[in-house]
Amino acid sequence: MTPFEAPIDDILFSLSHVARAEEAEWDRETGEAIITHFSAFAAEVLAPINALGDAQGCRLENGRVIMPDGFREAYQKLSGDGWLGLAAPEEFGGQNVDAVTAAAITEIFAGANHSLQMVSGLVPGAVSTLLHQGSREQQDNWIPRLISGEYLATMCLTEPEAGSDLARIRCAATQDAAGWSIDGEKIFISGGDQDMSENILHLVLARTAPMETGLKGLSLFLVPAHVDGKVNGVTITRIEEKLGLHASPTCQMRFDDARAELVGVEGQGLAAMFILMNHARIDVAMQGVAHASRAHAISSTYAATRVQGRRADRSPAHLIDHADVRRMLDEQRILALGARAMSHVALVESLRGAPVELIDFLTPICKIFGTEAGIRASDLGIQILGGYGYLTEYGLSQCWRDARITAIYEGANGIHALQLATRCLTQKGGAGADAFIALIERLADGGDWAERAIAEWQARRAMIVSSDNPAELAHDFAGQTIGLYLRAVWQRIADVADAHPDGEELRRLASKVKSIRI
Amino acid sequence: MTPFEAPIDDILFSLSHVARAEEAEWDRETGEAIITHFSAFAAEVLAPINALGDAQGCRLENGRVIMPDGFREAYQKLSGDGWLGLAAPEEFGGQNVDAVTAAAITEIFAGANHSLQMVSGLVPGAVSTLLHQGSREQQDNWIPRLISGEYLATMCLTEPEAGSDLARIRCAATQDAAGWSIDGEKIFISGGDQDMSENILHLVLARTAPMETGLKGLSLFLVPAHVDGKVNGVTITRIEEKLGLHASPTCQMRFDDARAELVGVEGQGLAAMFILMNHARIDVAMQGVAHASRAHAISSTYAATRVQGRRADRSPAHLIDHADVRRMLDEQRILALGARAMSHVALVESLRGAPVELIDFLTPICKIFGTEAGIRASDLGIQILGGYGYLTEYGLSQCWRDARITAIYEGANGIHALQLATRCLTQKGGAGADAFIALIERLADGGDWAERAIAEWQARRAMIVSSDNPAELAHDFAGQTIGLYLRAVWQRIADVADAHPDGEELRRLASKVKSIRI
Repeated sequence: MTPFEAPIDDILFSLSHVARAEEAEWDRETGEAIITHFSAFAAEVLAPINALGDAQGCRLENGRVIMPDGFREAYQKLSGDGWLGLAAPEEFGGQNVDAVTAAAITEIFAGANHSLQMVSGLVPGAVSTLLHQGSREQQDNWIPRLISGEYLATMCLTEPEAGSDLARIRCAATQDAAGWSIDGEKIFISGGDQDMSENILHLVLARTAPMETGLKGLSLFLVPAHVDGKVNGVTITRIEEKLGLHASPTCQMRFDDARAELVGVEGQGLAAMFILMNHARIDVAMQGVAHASRAHAISSTYAATRVQGRRADRSPAHLIDHADVRRMLDEQRILALGARAMSHVALVESLRGAPVELIDFLTPICKIFGTEAGIRASDLGIQILGGYGYLTEYGLSQCWRDARITAIYEGANGIHALQLATRCLTQKGGAGADAFIALIERLADGGDWAERAIAEWQARRAMIVSSDNPAELAHDFAGQTIGLYLRAVWQRIADVADAHPDGEELRRLASKVKSIRI
Repeated sequence: MTPFEAPIDDILFSLSHVARAEEAEWDRETGEAIITHFSAFAAEVLAPINALGDAQGCRLENGRVIMPDGFREAYQKLSGDGWLGLAAPEEFGGQNVDAVTAAAITEIFAGANHSLQMVSGLVPGAVSTLLHQGSREQQDNWIPRLISGEYLATMCLTEPEAGSDLARIRCAATQDAAGWSIDGEKIFISGGDQDMSENILHLVLARTAPMETGLKGLSLFLVPAHVDGKVNGVTITRIEEKLGLHASPTCQMRFDDARAELVGVEGQGLAAMFILMNHARIDVAMQGVAHASRAHAISSTYAATRVQGRRADRSPAHLIDHADVRRMLDEQRILALGARAMSHVALVESLRGAPVELIDFLTPICKIFGTEAGIRASDLGIQILGGYGYLTEYGLSQCWRDARITAIYEGANGIHALQLATRCLTQKGGAGADAFIALIERLADGGDWAERAIAEWQARRAMIVSSDNPAELAHDFAGQTIGLYLRAVWQRIADVADAHPDGEELRRLASKVKSIRI
């Protein structure tokens, strides 16, 4: 298998020149140092156990989840080197790294080892949630323990009857003299247990008011897996057999009188959880980018060296000499660079203080396209390698299996498309959509195609806003919106291509973007 | 998991009313009896061991391949009930069933258990090859043993350096006083060994003239795995770890002085092998149809019963009430019925004696679209089920993994697209393309859309024929050709929909075909 190598040049080009992060006071020197440092760590520590983790998977023994060989040691290095506290404030022991650099680290981590990134990746979101919703006491108590690696965090939302529809959550929180306690069942909890961190802090969405109150009866709680060395009423009832992410244990859990702390205001659990979820959504987009980039790296290395057929002059040809293989390699690269640029631009907009409705508008687009780019590029990779792509050892089948969940978790892509066609178009009189178009105009910088594409998009937008049934139009509208954003970021990529070592190649690819199907 | 049930109504509707098989002297009564009978067999014997075979996989022990539990017994029933000789002539002990009914059986078999279909599915092709190329003595000697199940057959083409490019085959056949013997290495041999049949007959493409002669130096040989109870110089050196088809052992093999029989004429091995390969290609299209149909069955059953969200009147909704889920279910069904109809029409054309250039034209289209339909419909199924789709137990992840190889084996889809844009357009002055358009006109029967779509297609055809580089245009041309054929068969489906129990539904789906992306 082609060894993992983080696409540092592509990432820095995207941040600096495409998203222009410096304009939002991003410190390139520091960012570059961190990215370079973490890339070496990922190649040395995280990537080498990725295929092994997939083959071995996790297992449930005597009520505890055992991670694959080497994961415990890798986690010790990860936490020991301070990577878990990257984005946390310095006052709690963190490094206060900006969100843009942190997203680059997430991408590199997921490209090297998506499963381990998944299990440890909720720490920044949990820290954010505590910073926004926790009391000062809770912040002082929990954030340092999360940063040090003593605790990993989980996000406990889904229940057997409550997936995309959280109003059906039944898990109940009740209060007595000793405080809150939780009873109920949760499913699909990533890292619900593992044997890497000493303890686990579960962030649990539970019901503090009757079912009829729906989403308004939900509150957010902290539930440590162990208290004073004893199990805190949390039982892992099983781990799921999945298509991929075998080294990320997906747990079914039961809470029986588990002691809990309320975070934030009773009845406002969903709002609190949204901080965690929004954080996770851009992370998921970066996971997709990671797979797209990794799939292209494996495929292009293979295609350049595998002998197949002959050239016109009868000399041996390589795979890459065949038009259909080049078409697939080009598409992979357009997807990877495009999806990365889309997320980077969104992150930089956020960093420079763009209105929240623009970020709310861009987040579902980045999530949908980032994840579909990862799946599609992995699929193309399998096809490029042919029979070898179907074998486990070339790593593309793992890319594809691991990437596949990203279109489902953190809100299935269809739900994001629906949100885009409804709330994102109507909130604050369409301010998000207006800001989106202003962004497109800025990125496209007078590109010939832009005026017409924007007019077509605005016509569709008007149709949807006045429609009685926007849900029927949501899928196509998401595609059109993504297509517009993709062409705009690629226009920018072409305009600044000279800053990339393969500038000529990027300009060639830019001319092919319009033929990519979303 | 939704129990397997063969889509008998859909298959018979497709054969009888869409492809009008009776016009080619298909005996519906006999065909229906065989299809119904085999469907029961598939549900009782083949489907129940499918998930288990996937979980357990094959293993190589002491040089022999061990199949998963239950496969040996299922094979005994399969051969004992005479299913292996379905399409073989009666004089050799077969049942002389027509190719159209046989294709329906292949579909049902693959839907119930793709792996077992794969390992046993080369028997009809081997019989065909012997009928066309074997001596009378070879036919008498081998065909009854294949039909009885004593021997299973393999197709040994690929070598480490010779995949899509068979001119690079190195495996050598040499002749001495005792006859021919084979030396060399083969890879990716499905069922290269197994413990179900008493013996195995390898059909091996080997070199009888130096490398410089390329494809013209290849001849076809029969190599029994055992002769007189002793190993015939055939060693299984390993079995591959694959993304799917875990119960179909993909073998790496070494031939060391293996005794062999020449089939047909020396130096014409490729032509002989093409009989086997063409047979296999329509079978592969049917495998794709099988997965598309199975994926839709699982998804639609789940979507009809899974509670999710609420209707406008606040009553609980099901998944199927959501527009995006309906969109995905519709697409699955359009793909499954469309791909099946495309292959059935091609088979009936062949049965009614259509010129070979039309069949040569339709075969790559059916292969590309059938396989992509299977993969895409499985992928949509995973998305419809959301988190549950990602779990092993609902069966969609196996559909997806098993289906994925179909776009690669029997000629990667890109190679078929290239053939379509080159040889299929030029041979006999474009007779295949002319016959294709005549077929489209017959199917579309004056549909409004057809005239314009055909004109556009003819314009593209002319462009490709006159192009210096048809390879660059091949992918898009295949898509356009498939799109045209798909719309035409769906026009026919809509026109005869009253003959289907869900006629109203089929007419609704027909109106959505033009929005399907190929």
